[in-house]
Formats: sequence, C-alpha cells, structure tokens
Amino acid sequence: MKRNKIAITMGDPAGIGPEIIVKMFLKHNLRKYGDVFVIGDLFPMLKAQRSISRKIAIKPINNSQLTIHNLRTKHNTIPLVDMENPGMDSIIPGEEQKKAGHASFTYIKKALELAKKRKIDAIVTAPINKHSLHMAGYKYPGHTEILAKFTKTKNFAMMLMGEKLKVILVTIHTSLKSVPSLLTRKKILDKIKLAHKSLKKDFRIKAPKIAVLGLNPHSGENSAFGREEEKIIIPAVKSAVKAGIRAYGPFPPDTIFGRIVNKGEFDAAVCMYHDQGLIPLKLLSFDTGVNVTMGLPVTRTSPDHGTAYDIAGTGKASEKSILSALRAAAQIAKNRKI
Amino acid sequence: MKRNKIAITMGDPAGIGPEIIVKMFLKHNLRKYGDVFVIGDLFPMLKAQRSISRKIAIKPINNSQLTIHNLRTKHNTIPLVDMENPGMDSIIPGEEQKKAGHASFTYIKKALELAKKRKIDAIVTAPINKHSLHMAGYKYPGHTEILAKFTKTKNFAMMLMGEKLKVILVTIHTSLKSVPSLLTRKKILDKIKLAHKSLKKDFRIKAPKIAVLGLNPHSGENSAFGREEEKIIIPAVKSAVKAGIRAYGPFPPDTIFGRIVNKGEFDAAVCMYHDQGLIPLKLLSFDTGVNVTMGLPVTRTSPDHGTAYDIAGTGKASEKSILSALRAAAQIAKNRKI
Repeated sequence: MKRNKIAITMGDPAGIGPEIIVKMFLKHNLRKYGDVFVIGDLFPMLKAQRSISRKIAIKPINNSQLTIHNLRTKHNTIPLVDMENPGMDSIIPGEEQKKAGHASFTYIKKALELAKKRKIDAIVTAPINKHSLHMAGYKYPGHTEILAKFTKTKNFAMMLMGEKLKVILVTIHTSLKSVPSLLTRKKILDKIKLAHKSLKKDFRIKAPKIAVLGLNPHSGENSAFGREEEKIIIPAVKSAVKAGIRAYGPFPPDTIFGRIVNKGEFDAAVCMYHDQGLIPLKLLSFDTGVNVTMGLPVTRTSPDHGTAYDIAGTGKASEKSILSALRAAAQIAKNRKI
Repeated sequence: MKRNKIAITMGDPAGIGPEIIVKMFLKHNLRKYGDVFVIGDLFPMLKAQRSISRKIAIKPINNSQLTIHNLRTKHNTIPLVDMENPGMDSIIPGEEQKKAGHASFTYIKKALELAKKRKIDAIVTAPINKHSLHMAGYKYPGHTEILAKFTKTKNFAMMLMGEKLKVILVTIHTSLKSVPSLLTRKKILDKIKLAHKSLKKDFRIKAPKIAVLGLNPHSGENSAFGREEEKIIIPAVKSAVKAGIRAYGPFPPDTIFGRIVNKGEFDAAVCMYHDQGLIPLKLLSFDTGVNVTMGLPVTRTSPDHGTAYDIAGTGKASEKSILSALRAAAQIAKNRKI
C-alpha cells in the first residue's frame, strides 16, 4: 500500500493554527501517519516556530516536489507549501482581518486542487475565522461548505468523534427553537445513510449498529411530550432498516450515551441537534475531539475547536485536537485504500 | 447531634422498589446513615425478601416505636411501617394497577405526616408509577408535586446530582419545541436562587459558584442563532448577581460540563431543559444518580430511575441509585442540622 500523503491547511493566520501545527511537528513523530505537509504561509509559520522552538525547521517545498514523493523529511522539519499571500508579515493575532480570511481560503483551495489530482489522500484543516473569510468576499458558512462546493458534493454531514463515541448531527448551527421544524424524515434518513457508509468505508466496521436519538425528553414518552418521534423519527428509522441498515431507536437521549460509551452497544449516534451530540462528546473528549466530514470524495478531518482568538499568539494553545485529527485522517485514508 | 431518622417509601408495589430496598439493606450497612426504616406494605416486602435472600428479616414497627427511638435494629433487619393496604397479596409485577397506585400514595402521605411531626429528618422515595397513581384518583404529575402540595411549598425544583456534577433544570417534562416559550427571566432566577440556597444549606458550600447555561448552540453566538440568551438568560444572571449570588454565564452548553467536571470551576449548573442537564449527568453517573428536591421543608431524595416494569420481579434491579439517594439524604439532613 502506498504511503499516505496528508495536507494540513494552516487555517486563519491570526488564530492558533500556526502554533498548534508547529507544536504537533515538534512534539510528535508524524512520519508514522504518512508524508505530512502544511499548506500555508511562511511568515506566520516562522513566527510561530520562533516563539516556540528553534529545534524545528520550516522547509518550503513546491508542487514538483509533491509529485516526486520527496516529502519524507526529517523528524525536525515542517514541509510547507508556501502560498506567498501578501501582507502576512503584518497579521495581528486575534483580530478579524480581510487578508487573513483571503489567505485561509487559498490554503483550502490548494488542498482541494491537490486532492482532485490525487496528489494527496487526506486534508486536515486548522480552524478558520468565518468573519475574516466573509470580509475577503468568500460567503461560506464554514470549511465544510467550501469543500462540498468545490467537490460538487450534495449529501454531506459532520461526524464528531472521540475515543469511545461518534456522533452525527442532523441539525447544527441553528437556534434550538428552529430545530423541530427543521427535522424531516428525509434529512434524518440521509444522515443515517451517510453514517452507515462512513462507518463501513472509513472505519471498516462490517455491519455498523447506529443509534438514532429522540428529540424530546424520554423520547417523547409515547407522545406525551412531543410527537416528532412518532411523526418523523420512527419513520426515518424504519426506512433505514428497510434499506438494510442496522438502525435502532429513537432512544431517550439521556440514557443512550451510557449504553454506547460503557457497553459499546452502538457504533455511532445520530443526534437531532448540536448540543445533544456535542455535550456528551466534549465531556468525554475534552481537547481530543475530531470532526470528520462524511460524504466528501477526499478524507477530511479537523480539530473540534475554533481559532481561539483569545489565546492566539500567547503560546497557550494545545496541539492535542489537531493531532487527533491527523491520526484519524491517516486511519481513514488507509481504510479507504483497502 | 441527634442521629438521623430516615424513612424510605416503598414506591409502586408492582415496580422494583421492594427489591432494591431489600438488596440495599442486605448488602450494605445502613446504620452509619442513621436510623433507616421503610414505609410500605408487608406482603410485597416479604415477596422481594424471599426471592432474594432469607438472610434478612423484615420487622414490622409501629408509630410508638418510632417515637421511642428503638429503630436501631440489627444489620440484618428491615424495620417496616406496614400500611396494611388491601390487595397487596395479588399485585402483578410490571403492571399498572389502581391498588398499587393507591398504596404508593399512602406511603408518601405517611412519610409527610411523620416529617410534619418532626419524627423524621429525611425521606428517600422509591419510584412510583404515574398512571397507577392516576388510576387510584391521585392526579399528580409525580412525587415532587405531592410533596410540594402537602408541605405548601410553592417554589421548588429538582437537583440531580452525581459524584462530580449537580444540575438544576428550569424546564423538565415538556416537549423540546415548547422549551423556548416556557423560559422566563423569573423562572431562571428562581432556580438559580433555589440552587444557591441548597448548595449553602444542604451541601455546606459557603459561597457557591453557579454556571447558568445558554439555550442555543454556542450560547447563541452573539444572537446569530437564537436570542433567548440576550433577552432572558443574561438578564436572569444579572439579577442573580445583584442579589449577591455568584452566578455566571450563560455558557455554551457543549463545553461547560468539562470545566465543571474536570476542573471544578462551578458547584452546579442551571440547565434550560431536561436533556441538557441529564445527558451529561447520566453519562457520568450511570446507575448512581440522585434526585434532590430543593425548596421543601423536609430533606427528600430519590434514585434517578423509574419503576422499571420491564425487569420488575426478575431480580435484576440494582440498588446502587437508591443507596446513593440514601447517602445523599443522610448528608443533607446532617448538614441542615449544623
């Protein structure tokens, strides 16, 4: 099997992306995950390196080098595809800036080009700032939508994973009030199907068991409080079962996570809203949670934190989550090649 | 300090109440918690005892015995105030029955009478069945409302506690859809105040720190998705602070529990809806969660499970949660006497 080639996009230059990338290369041997390199800008990377340790070097590489497989650099070197964006020497840490938004977009675009030419197997994305992105004229809600647009992917979803728990969200960044009206049988079924496919293909689970959660407390207690289970969720689970998927539920949200985490009864949980899935996930995997985008033609993972502007430039950021994201990307890319 | 006197109400005779009580007395030395006795019916208790172990005896006691402090029975004896309800020899395990509902009500009523006369310091309630209760003509949504009614308590709330986490719910058994419209500044403030008082009086925390949660993902992200934080929750927190309470927030629901559990930053979390508080609590305290009713004149705790009709009579029920409830009741009753 060919070695993995994994690109890490540097993310917003004003955020903690450069710092966590430098720390990850410095503290860990990444070569076991494949040929790992960064797509970013030299100046922010050098700045982070200088504030952290000179024991690690940044080595700019170019596209031809990517082709000739010479990424197997020494442990103490960060291979960097330098996008040479303008104004990178005057980035203000922790501030929304148009040039930072533009730069962060170029890294993703470059990674997508390389993925299209099959020069890389996976992309790990450091966090971007949505507002800076918008200031630069890129009107996307986030990473995932950019990736979906440029790979022409219509059916995609986030899976968030910790060591013992994988959750898939049916609705994400929307008010709690709007959740019930946003749920449809089709949306839930699509997520169950994506989860099923990803668990098989990306995680090599032969016959994955999927827990589908209710929306209401006690899963509505036979429609005593809330009828979405009866009207929408139960039909979605039935359709999934008909399609040959081992989907179960809807389960009362407050007791199902113990069954998954302590007893391993299910391989993943399809959750109706953001906090239903993220409260248990972040409680269990503080600092080490990983996002996986399901449905894309290229493997893509990311840490489960943002740009952390409040600590950008202070040296306090932890590389744990992005390291987990890299590890997951390597595993998924390998599984997809089997 | 006088020894605690703690009454355990037997709960629904058709549920797991008798079984978990027998197991608790059999397997654990309860005398360290005070003088602990049961209010129930002889027949269901004997039936449970016979199916579990003959190494423990059930000893009926009467009211005069309660007065003369002779509850200090041997380790292998269960003191029982026998309510002598009719039809207890023909209870069908796991079925809703009028006579079971009636009986379960008499235990609570008796406990409340003893509490009023100050013959007991605390009540631990085994689970009842709401439908059986209704069949017997007692139209209460649950235990808590019965206790509130007979003690003339207007302002009360549930606190659910595990080893490392205490949560207070602003809304409970209601559809998720109805949650946003049920939240008011006053309701949230009342729960914060109850939590504050309980943490001081019941748990002897001098200046408790209370985390108040947002309703929406990321706590609304500055009103980008959901404005309940801005309109209702922030004003409630401000009012609490004005009243001298160390209340903080609203916090993004998905990251606050890690801060409470791993870093101990707050003593309790005030949650906007059932699963927001119960997902993390039950994930951490599977089998050992305890409910504490705040605001009542008498200490009252209960296990965090129901009658478990599906396993009633099979001997599979665990006494862990009711034991945790007894332990908590003993601690709170002791703290209230200081």
